[in-house]
Amino acid sequence: MENTVVELQFALDTFYFLICGAFVMWMAAGFTMLESGLVRAKNTVEILTKNVGLYSIACIMYLVCGYAIMYDGGIFLSGITDSGFKEGMAEGSSTYAPSADFFFQVVFVATAMSIVSGAVAERMKLWSFFAFAVVLTGFIYPLEGSWTWNGASVFGMYTLGDLGFSDFAGSGIVHMAGAAAALAGVILLGPRKGKYGANGEIRAIPGANLPLATLGTFILWMGWFGFNGGSVLATATVDSANSVAIVFLNTNTAAAGGAIAALILSRIMFGKADLTMLLNGALAGLVAITAEPSTPTPLEATIFGALGGLLVVFSIVALDKLRIDDPVGAISVHGTVGLLGLLLVPITNGDVSFSGQIIGALTIFVWVFVASLVVWGILKATVGIRVSEELEYEGMDLAECGMEAYPEFEGNG
Amino acid sequence: MENTVVELQFALDTFYFLICGAFVMWMAAGFTMLESGLVRAKNTVEILTKNVGLYSIACIMYLVCGYAIMYDGGIFLSGITDSGFKEGMAEGSSTYAPSADFFFQVVFVATAMSIVSGAVAERMKLWSFFAFAVVLTGFIYPLEGSWTWNGASVFGMYTLGDLGFSDFAGSGIVHMAGAAAALAGVILLGPRKGKYGANGEIRAIPGANLPLATLGTFILWMGWFGFNGGSVLATATVDSANSVAIVFLNTNTAAAGGAIAALILSRIMFGKADLTMLLNGALAGLVAITAEPSTPTPLEATIFGALGGLLVVFSIVALDKLRIDDPVGAISVHGTVGLLGLLLVPITNGDVSFSGQIIGALTIFVWVFVASLVVWGILKATVGIRVSEELEYEGMDLAECGMEAYPEFEGNG
Amino acid sequence: MENTVVELQFALDTFYFLICGAFVMWMAAGFTMLESGLVRAKNTVEILTKNVGLYSIACIMYLVCGYAIMYDGGIFLSGITDSGFKEGMAEGSSTYAPSADFFFQVVFVATAMSIVSGAVAERMKLWSFFAFAVVLTGFIYPLEGSWTWNGASVFGMYTLGDLGFSDFAGSGIVHMAGAAAALAGVILLGPRKGKYGANGEIRAIPGANLPLATLGTFILWMGWFGFNGGSVLATATVDSANSVAIVFLNTNTAAAGGAIAALILSRIMFGKADLTMLLNGALAGLVAITAEPSTPTPLEATIFGALGGLLVVFSIVALDKLRIDDPVGAISVHGTVGLLGLLLVPITNGDVSFSGQIIGALTIFVWVFVASLVVWGILKATVGIRVSEELEYEGMDLAECGMEAYPEFEGNG
Repeated sequence: MENTVVELQFALDTFYFLICGAFVMWMAAGFTMLESGLVRAKNTVEILTKNVGLYSIACIMYLVCGYAIMYDGGIFLSGITDSGFKEGMAEGSSTYAPSADFFFQVVFVATAMSIVSGAVAERMKLWSFFAFAVVLTGFIYPLEGSWTWNGASVFGMYTLGDLGFSDFAGSGIVHMAGAAAALAGVILLGPRKGKYGANGEIRAIPGANLPLATLGTFILWMGWFGFNGGSVLATATVDSANSVAIVFLNTNTAAAGGAIAALILSRIMFGKADLTMLLNGALAGLVAITAEPSTPTPLEATIFGALGGLLVVFSIVALDKLRIDDPVGAISVHGTVGLLGLLLVPITNGDVSFSGQIIGALTIFVWVFVASLVVWGILKATVGIRVSEELEYEGMDLAECGMEAYPEFEGNG
Repeated sequence: MENTVVELQFALDTFYFLICGAFVMWMAAGFTMLESGLVRAKNTVEILTKNVGLYSIACIMYLVCGYAIMYDGGIFLSGITDSGFKEGMAEGSSTYAPSADFFFQVVFVATAMSIVSGAVAERMKLWSFFAFAVVLTGFIYPLEGSWTWNGASVFGMYTLGDLGFSDFAGSGIVHMAGAAAALAGVILLGPRKGKYGANGEIRAIPGANLPLATLGTFILWMGWFGFNGGSVLATATVDSANSVAIVFLNTNTAAAGGAIAALILSRIMFGKADLTMLLNGALAGLVAITAEPSTPTPLEATIFGALGGLLVVFSIVALDKLRIDDPVGAISVHGTVGLLGLLLVPITNGDVSFSGQIIGALTIFVWVFVASLVVWGILKATVGIRVSEELEYEGMDLAECGMEAYPEFEGNG
Repeated sequence: MENTVVELQFALDTFYFLICGAFVMWMAAGFTMLESGLVRAKNTVEILTKNVGLYSIACIMYLVCGYAIMYDGGIFLSGITDSGFKEGMAEGSSTYAPSADFFFQVVFVATAMSIVSGAVAERMKLWSFFAFAVVLTGFIYPLEGSWTWNGASVFGMYTLGDLGFSDFAGSGIVHMAGAAAALAGVILLGPRKGKYGANGEIRAIPGANLPLATLGTFILWMGWFGFNGGSVLATATVDSANSVAIVFLNTNTAAAGGAIAALILSRIMFGKADLTMLLNGALAGLVAITAEPSTPTPLEATIFGALGGLLVVFSIVALDKLRIDDPVGAISVHGTVGLLGLLLVPITNGDVSFSGQIIGALTIFVWVFVASLVVWGILKATVGIRVSEELEYEGMDLAECGMEAYPEFEGNG
């Protein structure tokens, strides 16, 4: 068979999509390292188990029904392995293998769920968490995704696209959604024992392994090139290739801007170069640019990232004052800054309106928060979501998982 | 010079091959982290040294003679740097740079050898291990590879391809082969001191650093996209691009299926969500799908992975009952489940026969096991393969490598 | 719009460049893990902070003015987001998106700066280090880069390219440059307290976490495929695809050669299989091949890598005798072996002259060393570059960053 330009374009777009998907899959390792570095040693095995488990659950539930709900396909991906190539397709019209599309989409679902695990760490029951993961990845996220990325109307009421809403790679659709689910869980779960004193004092609970947290941040930073870069959805034309390149550049520089802004602000506010703020600043820069990485200039992208890096520091401080205990800062990084990301889009993208962004943000937040609150509430009322006080004191690793993360290293904790 | 479609196809296939190869190279880091997390602190530097060393030995030996033995080329890769492109080649006929082929193949050799290091950990002499690595990567594996992937006849007796044998990316050729070499070593080496009691009791010897083991699993999971995805051998046509996409999807979902199956089974059998079983379950899912990731539907791939995840738990328990001491479960993950992978192929691939798969599995196993047994036996009879009892008690790091992995962390061990 | 072969070539080259750039970005994580594994626990948060910070600073400074200085563009990358595609361009003429070029270049700057952080570890003030990073990445490196990779004349005196100088991916331009900046810093900074005794004895100061150092080495090894492979600058023709494949192959085998050579030499010299020498040997192999990975045969590449692996061991020993204290061996790996890499080029590349390589090496070294010495000297005379003796004894983490890397693990240190 002779190959044609349009067939080769199909092949390149598919390959690009798969590589970007592999980068996003890698973000699962990033969240795992970040979270396992920021919890105490006694809860480390449990957070590792949660992360590998949630990624696996996300992959299976999105296969079972999530993709079908989001994109109107069949359950169990029936039909997904057909070729996406149509004979007689015009050259330049972008397309790719439908299984590559699934692969790229499924790792996004896992990302949303990964955000939750950090926020509820060190006190939530393992199997209740997994039960929630089944519902979020199989139903809550896919329905929300159908309104945003598939253009379905929100319960038959309005269509976000028509209102000027746009969220390129998912500052709101993925990140703020994950944070909304996490916030609902944290509110029902309550703070860790000892985090907040009777007289309003806030006690730092240091993470056990900061090199791992730093590694996790770098993994996420790298994976984000796939997250944002793949969201161009094509690379095999001059325009799409230029767009992907700009997205890579802007994603990187926004992270750098966020890191430096948070570093300097933490130095000013706390007198120290706070590593965890630096890491959260880089991640905040990434979240801030995710809603629109293709239209800002590199300078604008750096500034947007820096705004994210500043906001995340204030948000972490504010949530602690509100006694919303989020051990890794996930709600601030992905929620507060995810909202910022949505609101920044109209500045550089003239097709997008502030009102559309606000309605879109509200739609995502209200749906995911309320639906999650219901699911967490049912779990709390039935099997319970919080481990016993004794277990929380002793650590969850031995009780839930039967092993310690660092059995040979003496603990001070 | 004007570029043509067929030249661009050559370029895309070559680039795809290199990226897939880089992903497989990354698996070396995965095995290293997995194994260094699952051994005790006192043997960690030694397992790190073994892993970096074996990867390097594999790269050099396959260059010296391994590739020549497997694919009939010249030793020291003479001629490998020629262009693989032939003028007048029809568009659509797949080809790529021969040096890309070597690069992709060499990382497979290293993978096979990586499987061995985990199984013989914590008691084998470093330099005897390296001596074995030279033979396995330079001779034992390449000869086996010539029978399977290059269609040579097995000692002039029969040709596996003619018997309906197929092993897409190497459940048997790479993984079961590595496990067979490991099994031969473990039998001659004996179990670690203290692993099995006089009255038949089996003692758990916990790994020192479970976040590293989890990281290693994620690295392997990611690298496997290259391992299986690259084994399509082309991506620059519509058919091959679709096939690569299906392979990525199936590889991912099989791992997820294996993880969840092992998690649930370990909960049922041991009453805990056993992290190491979860990790081994994910890896087992990957091994199970490796013999044929392109023909199953996603649902079938998930089920095949889940079967691998169930089998690996039973296999680990069974090997312990047989007093075959494998600190990381490598023989079960890659050997037992590698065999399962081969036997699953005919279910979804009509061109493959059960009898062919059984003959192929036997051929691989018998050759690698017997040849390895001879090499390990010669090493045992001459320089010895096991460290002294005193050294095993004290740990191998200071004696073999002159340093400790975690010199500042107090050990309980 | 109909797509043409030349447009598709533009798209493939751009995608290749971005993926290679992402691999090089990943090297930032590699340096971070390597360095955080090789310092003591009490200085780990600080080295993590330095690494994330310097990467971010490099990205921003190269955006602000570095790229403009090196390649004559506008500051703040004005114009960078234009399409690099020209209508009517001949098929086969290589080109790619200019933002992809920036992305690929910016990660090289960060690599050069990463080399510095390891050498000055455990005693340099955090913010003085960041101040130096601003100058190196914004001015010192870009000016040097303009002479080498952009063909500008050296202060109007001579043009390196005319003298037969060539440095394919930057053994000298990136690695030796980073080492020269580090050396200047180390000389002004002095050795760590306790490293050298009054009677000339040299005391080993073991790193706190060797699995991390090994992981870092593997990350760098993987990232180097992008570093060298991307430096072909194109992959969408038969010739460039073949070249990229050879570069991947040679990069890998040079690392393997360096690892094995250093392993054997350390066994002979020290009686132990020294893991840190093994790791530095692999990195030395990578540095040695970086000046020209495309013309050697695989056998030559292995030998060149092995020469690097031998040289790095001798260099580390020699620097210690000179009381130049480099906690991670960065000056030897990147400086001494970087020079070796430059000098090896004429052996396999007939277009390059020894005299050109020597003049080029001197130009790079003298410029970067002297300029760095001036900047470090100004910093020393004003804000100071060395922490107090008390702080050095207690560790920099709590004082500079307000947290410990491993707060729960008892320290022996």
